[in-house]
Amino acid sequence: MVSKKEGILFIISGPSGVGKGTVIKEVLKLVPDINLSISYTTRPPRKNETNGKEYFFVSEEEFNRMIERGEFLEWARVHGNLYGTPKRYIEERLKNNEDVILEIDTQGARQVKKAFPNGVFIFILPPSIDELLKRLHKRGTEKEEEIQIRLNNAKEEFKEWEWYNYTVINESIQLTGEIIASIIKAERCRTSRLGWKGL
Amino acid sequence: MVSKKEGILFIISGPSGVGKGTVIKEVLKLVPDINLSISYTTRPPRKNETNGKEYFFVSEEEFNRMIERGEFLEWARVHGNLYGTPKRYIEERLKNNEDVILEIDTQGARQVKKAFPNGVFIFILPPSIDELLKRLHKRGTEKEEEIQIRLNNAKEEFKEWEWYNYTVINESIQLTGEIIASIIKAERCRTSRLGWKGL
Repeated sequence: MVSKKEGILFIISGPSGVGKGTVIKEVLKLVPDINLSISYTTRPPRKNETNGKEYFFVSEEEFNRMIERGEFLEWARVHGNLYGTPKRYIEERLKNNEDVILEIDTQGARQVKKAFPNGVFIFILPPSIDELLKRLHKRGTEKEEEIQIRLNNAKEEFKEWEWYNYTVINESIQLTGEIIASIIKAERCRTSRLGWKGL
Repeated sequence: MVSKKEGILFIISGPSGVGKGTVIKEVLKLVPDINLSISYTTRPPRKNETNGKEYFFVSEEEFNRMIERGEFLEWARVHGNLYGTPKRYIEERLKNNEDVILEIDTQGARQVKKAFPNGVFIFILPPSIDELLKRLHKRGTEKEEEIQIRLNNAKEEFKEWEWYNYTVINESIQLTGEIIASIIKAERCRTSRLGWKGL
């Protein structure tokens, strides 16, 4: 009687260290029929990261060429590294009535909001500042100095939560994954996203 | 860091025979921390229905006294019987930051929308007209003549779906129950329903 008019773009954002990447892996297990948009970055891969899985890892030169060709929906320098979201992949999936999920920093999320005002913006918060600090240390990928920068950035980024559609406190990966899976299932039934197909 | 400001009212509506009651039972299993608002009716109980469980079954006289005392959030005559939603139970739960779920016909839902514009209105559709007719027959509680009335009403009621927040096609009780449980979990994380509690 009704059916979805077009694909939905889900944007997962929040401060550095809050666990966006791990949460998305959990969501992909629970919602297999969603497409992950993979970003480009000039930051070096962490141990256990694979090119084309977490990110496409490229040189600054290659990244700049992509900027010139207009291949990014948005791009930004964050903590000294370039990050970019490829445009065509998302547009094609959505047009094909497929949903896309995207991990992005808070700067980038604002840009995506301009291009996709109907996207579903989900902000991930840590349970507390202490917990965030613990996670940044545990990850062990940043130097102490860089951790302090990220922590200060995080305090600024918290202020962003208010314009997001949803806000989820990341108490545990499993629970947060389930909540985001619930958000995806719910948004697929939002009347505003459906069209009447006759009796 | 954030927490829910007040309870949320979830309204399950849709045409007669679509399976609202069965679906709600499934939802209550999946979301035990939600309160079911039980309506009053003058219609006689069906076999397997218990007073105070599906409905409070009262006489027309008793129902009219409750109208006079202003105890109903809304009431209506549907298919010849009176149905009413008690006001105080819902108001007290919501004030106490507890969520409430409510089954109601489409006439009633419009009234509830006026009193609770922030309620989450969920419209249940049958997979097809044929399926609805099959279910009305299977239920075996209405005479053929009454089934025709309900079917014609249903066709009118379908037009209501557009103003609801969510529309769910009831393909199976289990699936519909899961989707509504997802909607409940998602709405609990809607930023507009949350307040910032400091770092």
